[in-house]
Amino acid sequence: MDTDCCQIEKSGADTFFLYGDLCHAPVIGRLDIHASSYLLCKNGQCAGIFKTVPPEFASVPVLDYGGCLIMPGMVDLHIHASQFAYRGTGMDCELLDWLARFAFPEESRYADPDYAAGAYGIFAEQMRKSATTRAVIFGTIHREATLLLMDLMEKTGIVSYVGKVNMDRDAPPALREPAADLSAFDTFGFVNAAAKRNYRRTKPILTPRFIPCCSDSLLSELSEVRRTYDLPVQSHLSENPGEVELVKKLMPDARFYGDGYDRYGLFGNESRTVMAHCVYSSDEEIRRLLKNGVWVAHCPNSNMNLASGIAPVRRYLDLGMRVGLGSDVAGGQTESMFRAVTDAIQISKLYWRHIDSGARPLTFPESFYMATRGGGSFFGKVGSFADGFAFDALVLDDAVMPTPREFTVEQRLERAFYLGLDQLGIRAKFADGRMIYQH
Amino acid sequence: MDTDCCQIEKSGADTFFLYGDLCHAPVIGRLDIHASSYLLCKNGQCAGIFKTVPPEFASVPVLDYGGCLIMPGMVDLHIHASQFAYRGTGMDCELLDWLARFAFPEESRYADPDYAAGAYGIFAEQMRKSATTRAVIFGTIHREATLLLMDLMEKTGIVSYVGKVNMDRDAPPALREPAADLSAFDTFGFVNAAAKRNYRRTKPILTPRFIPCCSDSLLSELSEVRRTYDLPVQSHLSENPGEVELVKKLMPDARFYGDGYDRYGLFGNESRTVMAHCVYSSDEEIRRLLKNGVWVAHCPNSNMNLASGIAPVRRYLDLGMRVGLGSDVAGGQTESMFRAVTDAIQISKLYWRHIDSGARPLTFPESFYMATRGGGSFFGKVGSFADGFAFDALVLDDAVMPTPREFTVEQRLERAFYLGLDQLGIRAKFADGRMIYQH
Repeated sequence: MDTDCCQIEKSGADTFFLYGDLCHAPVIGRLDIHASSYLLCKNGQCAGIFKTVPPEFASVPVLDYGGCLIMPGMVDLHIHASQFAYRGTGMDCELLDWLARFAFPEESRYADPDYAAGAYGIFAEQMRKSATTRAVIFGTIHREATLLLMDLMEKTGIVSYVGKVNMDRDAPPALREPAADLSAFDTFGFVNAAAKRNYRRTKPILTPRFIPCCSDSLLSELSEVRRTYDLPVQSHLSENPGEVELVKKLMPDARFYGDGYDRYGLFGNESRTVMAHCVYSSDEEIRRLLKNGVWVAHCPNSNMNLASGIAPVRRYLDLGMRVGLGSDVAGGQTESMFRAVTDAIQISKLYWRHIDSGARPLTFPESFYMATRGGGSFFGKVGSFADGFAFDALVLDDAVMPTPREFTVEQRLERAFYLGLDQLGIRAKFADGRMIYQH
Repeated sequence: MDTDCCQIEKSGADTFFLYGDLCHAPVIGRLDIHASSYLLCKNGQCAGIFKTVPPEFASVPVLDYGGCLIMPGMVDLHIHASQFAYRGTGMDCELLDWLARFAFPEESRYADPDYAAGAYGIFAEQMRKSATTRAVIFGTIHREATLLLMDLMEKTGIVSYVGKVNMDRDAPPALREPAADLSAFDTFGFVNAAAKRNYRRTKPILTPRFIPCCSDSLLSELSEVRRTYDLPVQSHLSENPGEVELVKKLMPDARFYGDGYDRYGLFGNESRTVMAHCVYSSDEEIRRLLKNGVWVAHCPNSNMNLASGIAPVRRYLDLGMRVGLGSDVAGGQTESMFRAVTDAIQISKLYWRHIDSGARPLTFPESFYMATRGGGSFFGKVGSFADGFAFDALVLDDAVMPTPREFTVEQRLERAFYLGLDQLGIRAKFADGRMIYQH
């Protein structure tokens, strides 16, 4: 059965148990496993893990997923909805070339509401079926198309931030907003229109594309917009050497790439900010990321495909920075966050082997943490089953892939990620205490 | 519908057309695309590509896969059937540690015929459904279990070489054959037993595990076995720094790792040989690989998981070496050769970016070539649709993944690989002119 309705919501229950093999990573580097246990949901929040149902909850309904893995939903900190349609094509080139040849022409299509409806419909449906319960999403410069994307995301039940992109230079005319003030004005309109739609789980986020596409005047205008609405911010940072060089030329007085955002208040501190990539962040930039509490969206699949390189994630974690994972479709080829988890581990091993033998490879528990609690923290108390955290959960039947072996729950969890069982094995998905998908 | 019977064989036709969008890479770096065309199969071989059915073939049956991609079947040059059961677990460690903690304990289980039957049954079924039409396979040291594996592989219709492993040192007692001559004697028995089973498409291959597990006496004995039966050879070479160091200690008079095989006639020339990995081959080893015509099985997924590193594949290709791809389950997490194709491209980009800016990244057509014609050459005229080549073909319905876009056939092919459509989209598979799978 495949449905988008909410069984729990229908039944009126906002308090219920999930029963199964519970796995989460409340702190980095450690998996907490509760085999054959009950996870209580109360008013949309996690409210305890129990080996047996306590007498005071005897009347609370139990959703029995015995034998299944139950884990926090995946948090995708960086994905371009508008690039989803061509993912997996045009992979034989580098970032700036790829943007000009593939990303920009595709994004231009979203001026057409019919194209946007078809393309975003496919995107939202794929996200609905995915392991993701929270996402931070790029649209395009087009207000109407981006509002449509928000309508569709709202229906998926996924909790998301969605951004209308701002760009006023270094792009084809169809994607270059005519002036900084008009771009900002359009963003006011976008935020106001979104507010009127009364979404429960879909919020706007300020989205200057990246410094190469944003003049100083535009960033200055957006700074105003941000303050007016107290918006969070998403953008790209130090992804690729060619891009980093370009930023130096375009903004010669910035101390480093991220300083270009920071001087306009678009780089953490009071503005909650997520920056994708940070492959080539200088020491000074890293210190600023840390000081300002900026989230880093590590996007390993994209960093391979666009030949960007390997981000020094071990260093970021050791410094105590906020790091989550992003699929970065369509630099990344897939929306699968399971894939992001294993890609992050794999390229960290290559980094250790070939670049810095002092940077020990990421472990599975660490990468799992980044995809759940690491990115989840951008949304607040999200990404673990600790009391008071948002009840976001993924139920996975790993028996879809047969084995003659016995495995521990830890091994089953690792195996589910490496075998990509988010493609075949998802039984149910919950966000904020609502069932939003079942299969 | 899901069947293992052979529709074409049943109908008695050994001459037929496949109709669809034909894609192959008869030479490296170039895709030949024949949209909406007919591929003729005659007596198990490719016999021409036509835009329309020529009058003299008007009565030949046509299997109409209009709108589907049709490409040569994938060739997996390196896979451990006996590690399939635990793939995707135990990934947080390096080669030698991983062998001791995961691979060897698992392989010990194959002394039990019941375990072998269950585990190899799952393996063979998964291979049957995969994109692979040819494979070079490791079993274990166990003769009976390996013969059972051959029985099962024969039924899949996949053309394969299967090896009973030889190892007489540096392994737990359960996996250490008691003496070199007994190991060799058992291999005589294995080859003779296989011959009696009259397989049509499953052949034995000599399989010294790798130098660390094979004494000089064993290699010397195996040299005899090889000559007696004119067997091909598979093994591992220069996969990991720790292993390379160990070989230096164990065989101090060998000029380099591969020389340790070559001195026993187990390294190309008259013995057709495939060596997995070659990540750390010295210049001298590379020259010998080239001179002796040894096939390299590049296993990118495994090389990431076991933190081995990135093999210098661009150099091998530029030198004109024989290079194919291997899934290397369970160092690799999946039998998917689509994944191997994209992994090879992705890590070549990291190699270019971080290690050698002179080694330009592999392109999709190059990696596709390695997975088809590159590895296929180990089997003879295999891996393209050129006249006289074995009729191995994969029919893929890429419409299973919706898109609002139009794509060229080239783009659809690339997309099918990056989106892993071998998991969902395989419609039919042919080997040596027989349909061996349809869905």
